[in-house]
Amino acid sequence: MSSSLRSIYPWIRSPLVACSPMLRISQPALAVAVSHAGGLGFVAGGYDTDELALNMKNAVGLLRGLDPPVPTQTGVLPIGIGFVLWGCDLERSVQVIQQFVPAAVWLFAAPSNEQYALWASRIRDATQSRTQIWIQVAGVKEGLDVVRAAQPDVLVAQGNDAGGHGMKRSASVISLVPELRDSLDAHGFGRTTVLAAGGIVDGRGAAAALVLGADGVVMGTRFLASHEAVVAKGYQQELLRAEDGGVSTVRSRLFDRVKETNGWPDDYDGRAFVNRTFLDAQNGMPVEQNISLHKQEVAHGDTDGGVKARTIRYAGTGVGLIHDVVPAAEIVNTVAAEVEMSLAKAIKKLNAA
Amino acid sequence: MSSSLRSIYPWIRSPLVACSPMLRISQPALAVAVSHAGGLGFVAGGYDTDELALNMKNAVGLLRGLDPPVPTQTGVLPIGIGFVLWGCDLERSVQVIQQFVPAAVWLFAAPSNEQYALWASRIRDATQSRTQIWIQVAGVKEGLDVVRAAQPDVLVAQGNDAGGHGMKRSASVISLVPELRDSLDAHGFGRTTVLAAGGIVDGRGAAAALVLGADGVVMGTRFLASHEAVVAKGYQQELLRAEDGGVSTVRSRLFDRVKETNGWPDDYDGRAFVNRTFLDAQNGMPVEQNISLHKQEVAHGDTDGGVKARTIRYAGTGVGLIHDVVPAAEIVNTVAAEVEMSLAKAIKKLNAA
Repeated sequence: MSSSLRSIYPWIRSPLVACSPMLRISQPALAVAVSHAGGLGFVAGGYDTDELALNMKNAVGLLRGLDPPVPTQTGVLPIGIGFVLWGCDLERSVQVIQQFVPAAVWLFAAPSNEQYALWASRIRDATQSRTQIWIQVAGVKEGLDVVRAAQPDVLVAQGNDAGGHGMKRSASVISLVPELRDSLDAHGFGRTTVLAAGGIVDGRGAAAALVLGADGVVMGTRFLASHEAVVAKGYQQELLRAEDGGVSTVRSRLFDRVKETNGWPDDYDGRAFVNRTFLDAQNGMPVEQNISLHKQEVAHGDTDGGVKARTIRYAGTGVGLIHDVVPAAEIVNTVAAEVEMSLAKAIKKLNAA
Repeated sequence: MSSSLRSIYPWIRSPLVACSPMLRISQPALAVAVSHAGGLGFVAGGYDTDELALNMKNAVGLLRGLDPPVPTQTGVLPIGIGFVLWGCDLERSVQVIQQFVPAAVWLFAAPSNEQYALWASRIRDATQSRTQIWIQVAGVKEGLDVVRAAQPDVLVAQGNDAGGHGMKRSASVISLVPELRDSLDAHGFGRTTVLAAGGIVDGRGAAAALVLGADGVVMGTRFLASHEAVVAKGYQQELLRAEDGGVSTVRSRLFDRVKETNGWPDDYDGRAFVNRTFLDAQNGMPVEQNISLHKQEVAHGDTDGGVKARTIRYAGTGVGLIHDVVPAAEIVNTVAAEVEMSLAKAIKKLNAA
């Protein structure tokens, strides 16, 4: 069992609900709202550290304006920053981290475990270990290797249901979380915190994650449908409209090819809505034509989405459980309230059956 | 909330743990052992009804020999039979069902919902509705359509983690079960029982399924590692050895192509161990050559498996959590005991955090 998260993040409710650093979407307003409600919000670092520094300055401003303030014990900023390591510059990122001392830095998609080790070490030096190191993994061996290399405080165990990028070959949290937990315990890493991500959008999913052995949860897709997410109206409408999350979304390398995003390592793909881009590719459309048609649509701005649209929109299988766009704080509060209820209901069902 | 399962199957423990009808593997000894321990075992119907009738006769013999007997109220046989509908003859199957009156018939992979409706109606007529109709689905719309067409008593909601055949595009139980439950409730089908399948191999997974809204669980892969499963020694050894279930297994259409099994509808694939067959195909080996090499290895009998072997072995992502081959009864008992513990532990963690 890992050490208490609340001793490190004194403002959080139980269980911890974190909002993942979604590129261009998780900006200061969302991160601050999540932390203010008792979760942990992240600003997506992106590939431009000047923009990141500006974002963090804005976040500091938003945090200063809060009444009551978010209570921190160690002088850290009560939000995190996420970095996609294959696309981020270490030196400039460490400068921003040193300047703002976020409560956590979330590292993802490093080209090697040595990179995780290097980043973790540099960040710890820069903030005297006040900034916690989170690393996202999707496999058990991957998790163990990462822990051995970089000794993160937190492993984010991302299941196959997650929206956006992840490991092509991966289990969902139903088996990933318990196997990772057992494996960490068996290898002497029982103190590593494990958070579950992928397909979790409400208190039932969060309660299931705890039962499986996680110490808290990370949600991305659910927060896409929040007031504070920087996301097109049509995207949010599509999230509300979508049903049957395992059928209306799909994992594929195609989305990066069509968006001409070339940096992701070979073993990653991404989960997005099934759309015309995907269906045309399945029917044999050459990728060059698909790229061109996609560009044309994107140039026209927002769309309603659906299987006739081409714009690529990442989403997890939990979309079918999302029915409203609400303040991020309401999402944190609702999940926390539902967790206890879901566990109680399961016990009642067990005894009544 | 569905009606009490124990009122229908008076011998079962809570929560219901069913063993799925695995082709050639789920034979009378396994089915009877599972039911005798307070679960519900299934005999896999296969494609040959003469063989099935013989199997059921053997099952009756095994059940008669039990002391104490499995208590039934309605004179049904306290085990089920599973049918893969695209490959089974309705008339001859109904004859066997009428002769043996199993507690449940599990229908899967029908070419159309009309087929489910036809089978359900014929089976109910043949046994005066004493045999419950279970139908396996992997999507929310699919589940609703099946309920409208055939009014099954039970929907088996199979997540993407499951071993063996399933729908190519599917979520895991983490989002499938709650979305299906909500959707059934919203459309007036609240009495339909939902069982969760896919990636569940222990009490943590079963407890998570209950929290997500399932009424019980189905396990296949876990029972492969039971004394009663009819399975090669090398297959069981591979199950014990396997780690990192989402990485060591993979879903693909390739397995059917190489085994020259041609009947599965286009939208199905299967999850099996990553092996030489799969890796060679990824590296561009023509399927004819792969078929031929596979045949050669299979002709030599059992293998130790692993990435050098070609024999295709179905398994779910839960394999990394399986560490022993035990009597099937022990699996049922252990899961039942662990479920309550897992829920209690989660509540403790929630309050302690």
